[in-house]
Amino acid sequence: MSERFFEDFAVGQVLAPKRRLWVGKDELIAFAKQFDPQPFHLDELAARKSIFGGLIASGWYTAAMTMRLVTESEFRSAAPTIGLGFDELRWPIPVRPGDELRIESEVLDVRLSKSRPNQGLLKSRILTFNQQGQVVQRVVANELVPRRSTLERR
Amino acid sequence: MSERFFEDFAVGQVLAPKRRLWVGKDELIAFAKQFDPQPFHLDELAARKSIFGGLIASGWYTAAMTMRLVTESEFRSAAPTIGLGFDELRWPIPVRPGDELRIESEVLDVRLSKSRPNQGLLKSRILTFNQQGQVVQRVVANELVPRRSTLERR
Repeated sequence: MSERFFEDFAVGQVLAPKRRLWVGKDELIAFAKQFDPQPFHLDELAARKSIFGGLIASGWYTAAMTMRLVTESEFRSAAPTIGLGFDELRWPIPVRPGDELRIESEVLDVRLSKSRPNQGLLKSRILTFNQQGQVVQRVVANELVPRRSTLERR
Repeated sequence: MSERFFEDFAVGQVLAPKRRLWVGKDELIAFAKQFDPQPFHLDELAARKSIFGGLIASGWYTAAMTMRLVTESEFRSAAPTIGLGFDELRWPIPVRPGDELRIESEVLDVRLSKSRPNQGLLKSRILTFNQQGQVVQRVVANELVPRRSTLERR
């Protein structure tokens, strides 16, 4: 994994890492038991009778799996990236057991931080897809990324 | 837990459930190993040397713990609530091992859905606090909640 600095980002850049994550039923249920114990995340029979027609992952599991894909992807910026927060977190289609997830990232904005001159502000859209190419999550990420120049001066 | 319908929500309502969740170091690290394997989430020594000065939870762990508190709280709406998504997800202060988390919710907006006449749109701010009363997460939640009247007519 090559680390990326402020200088390496440009608006419109799209990155589509090859890494895939497979969604196991047991892991999906284990997450729901711990954090989101609703019937359609926990129990196959109850889920079949729900409006979802079958077991679906907690949206927060989809978000966590997406984070895993981000940490394993080449578009990760130079550590430590500081997450400033996320906007417009949406789950248009649920994740189901057996799905295979991948991510794509597009740089929406990149600018120098006024308050922290050795860092830049990066805004990017992260899309999470299933194996059918459907978007299962979209979110806008705001991060602080270090400038290469100041890091090298240390 | 009493379930809540569209008719039970009003702008400005604040709910502060009594439920607390304690953050264990092992669980915090286990989550990071699975979903967000960055040194300051995984390793105490590396974390002490980082800008955080000690082990901190992944923001997604804070989000997942918040979801757990939501599912266990009296302000949960009548099932199945359909999450439309979240906005302005922020982690102003990191969660650390030994913290005790609680949530507060404020209704920001509640209106009938135009496209789904038997449901309402609920927008609320969910704040997550640590034991010192500091906000460790804030987020705006958008949900569809069923109307009591239509449910009773079924």
